[in-house]
Amino acid sequence: MKQFIVVGLGRFGSSVATTLASKGYDVLAIDSAEEKVQEISTEVTHAVKADATDEDTMKTLGVSNFDIAIVSIGENIHANILTTLILKELGVKYVVVKAQDNLHGKLLSKVGADKVVYPERDMGVRVANNLVSAKVLDYIELSPGYSIAEIAASEKFAGKTLNESNLRGKFGINVIAIKNEEEVNVSPEATDKINSGDILVVMGHEDGLRRLKEY
Amino acid sequence: MKQFIVVGLGRFGSSVATTLASKGYDVLAIDSAEEKVQEISTEVTHAVKADATDEDTMKTLGVSNFDIAIVSIGENIHANILTTLILKELGVKYVVVKAQDNLHGKLLSKVGADKVVYPERDMGVRVANNLVSAKVLDYIELSPGYSIAEIAASEKFAGKTLNESNLRGKFGINVIAIKNEEEVNVSPEATDKINSGDILVVMGHEDGLRRLKEY
Ligand SMILES: Nc1ncnc2c1ncn2[C@@H]1O[C@H](COP(=O)(O)OP(=O)(O)OP(=O)(O)O)[C@@H](O)[C@H]1O
Ligand SMILES: Nc1ncnc2c1ncn2[C@@H]1O[C@H](COP(=O)(O)OP(=O)(O)OP(=O)(O)O)[C@@H](O)[C@H]1O
Ligand SMILES: [Ca+2]
Ligand SMILES: [Ca+2]
Ligand SMILES: [Ca+2]
Ligand SMILES: [Ca+2]
Repeated sequence: MKQFIVVGLGRFGSSVATTLASKGYDVLAIDSAEEKVQEISTEVTHAVKADATDEDTMKTLGVSNFDIAIVSIGENIHANILTTLILKELGVKYVVVKAQDNLHGKLLSKVGADKVVYPERDMGVRVANNLVSAKVLDYIELSPGYSIAEIAASEKFAGKTLNESNLRGKFGINVIAIKNEEEVNVSPEATDKINSGDILVVMGHEDGLRRLKEY
Repeated sequence: MKQFIVVGLGRFGSSVATTLASKGYDVLAIDSAEEKVQEISTEVTHAVKADATDEDTMKTLGVSNFDIAIVSIGENIHANILTTLILKELGVKYVVVKAQDNLHGKLLSKVGADKVVYPERDMGVRVANNLVSAKVLDYIELSPGYSIAEIAASEKFAGKTLNESNLRGKFGINVIAIKNEEEVNVSPEATDKINSGDILVVMGHEDGLRRLKEY
């Protein structure tokens, strides 16, 4: 079973740590603020108050034994970079680091970060996409311009079969699944009905998806 | 065309603002820090330095004319709540607010926020999920325990057809699409081959998805 270190228990880091721990993984959570350590202490394997930029402390904590570290120190870019450097030097195989912006991300790669993430930026893109059509609930971009999306079914389709709704003909869209409060129909057939309040999981080009959303 | 206000141009807010603007929407971006306003000024319709907790200033900026506002003030919870209150009072129809935690989120709903988002927390869950298996690239949860996921194809499938791979029989998984560097095959047939490096877009229960990832 993989073992994880999470350094920096802000909103992002604490969410990573508790999610991993809830899946049964060993998690060592580190923050320099006593309060953050206390808040998370019952939810992870070990929670320690420590300054991650102090190499001796990190050595003592045995970080070399861990497979994966997530560095989620935010505002203090210097501490963020130094911590990354120390974790790599101490032999952690895979270090994921949260960056402020592209320039910071490039620096992190140079000092050995194996993966750089931009949670605020990525979520900003996602929320903006969802806002432009309140009907799009979640999406995966398959290739530029081509996505899988969850779209609340237009009332115009209520009571019609997939065949009658003709989403392929009108929008070039394939229906992958139909969801309602109770269940997910994952092999929808031409004769299956769309009901009021259903959510359609659809695949297609952005053009078609947009036209479907606005329908 | 909808018009948007974004208040608070941190990493999340600025990403929301520039994403909306890049899609052609009118965006008024507001921050109390001169530097943030300057950084974004060429990318949005209007960028203004203002304290969003000052009701008179907000009135003067004509916020009542906007359909949707996104409040992404972070650390200062008081300013975040007060701004939400003012935007609702001035008649903005739909106000989305970034919250620190659940308690903050409940307060925001009480003062009229139409939608509360937790970008750091949500992204923490997402990154943790992706880390547990490096092979899962993105996913949509369709219902508890049931998801669509992008999974890097195991080398064991390389050169085999979908039929030979028997993902449905072995894992209870449906293959929705096969991606490679060049294209996305969105109607994969039993005789289509999986090649080394392909990404499979699959749908199924968490159990089956986990077994497929670990295969
Ligand atoms: N040298 C350090 N060693 C250990 N922890 C640190 C160090 N420096 C900062 N931290 C911790 O990192 C955490 C996250 O930092 P910060 O709040 O600046 O990031 P953030 O990007 O605002 O976080 P988020 O948006 O995820 O809430 C804080 O709890 C802080 O105490
Ligand atoms: N009263 C206010 N009026 C306008 N802008 C404000 C006000 N208070 C704070 N802001 C701005 O909100 C922005 C975001 O706030 P802050 O940096 O605390 O959030 P954050 O959660 O750390 O952001 P992120 O994680 O998205 O980078 C800052 O640029 C700040 O200047
Ligand atoms: Ca912070
Ligand atoms: Ca997704
Ligand atoms: Ca900040
Ligand atoms: Ca943040």
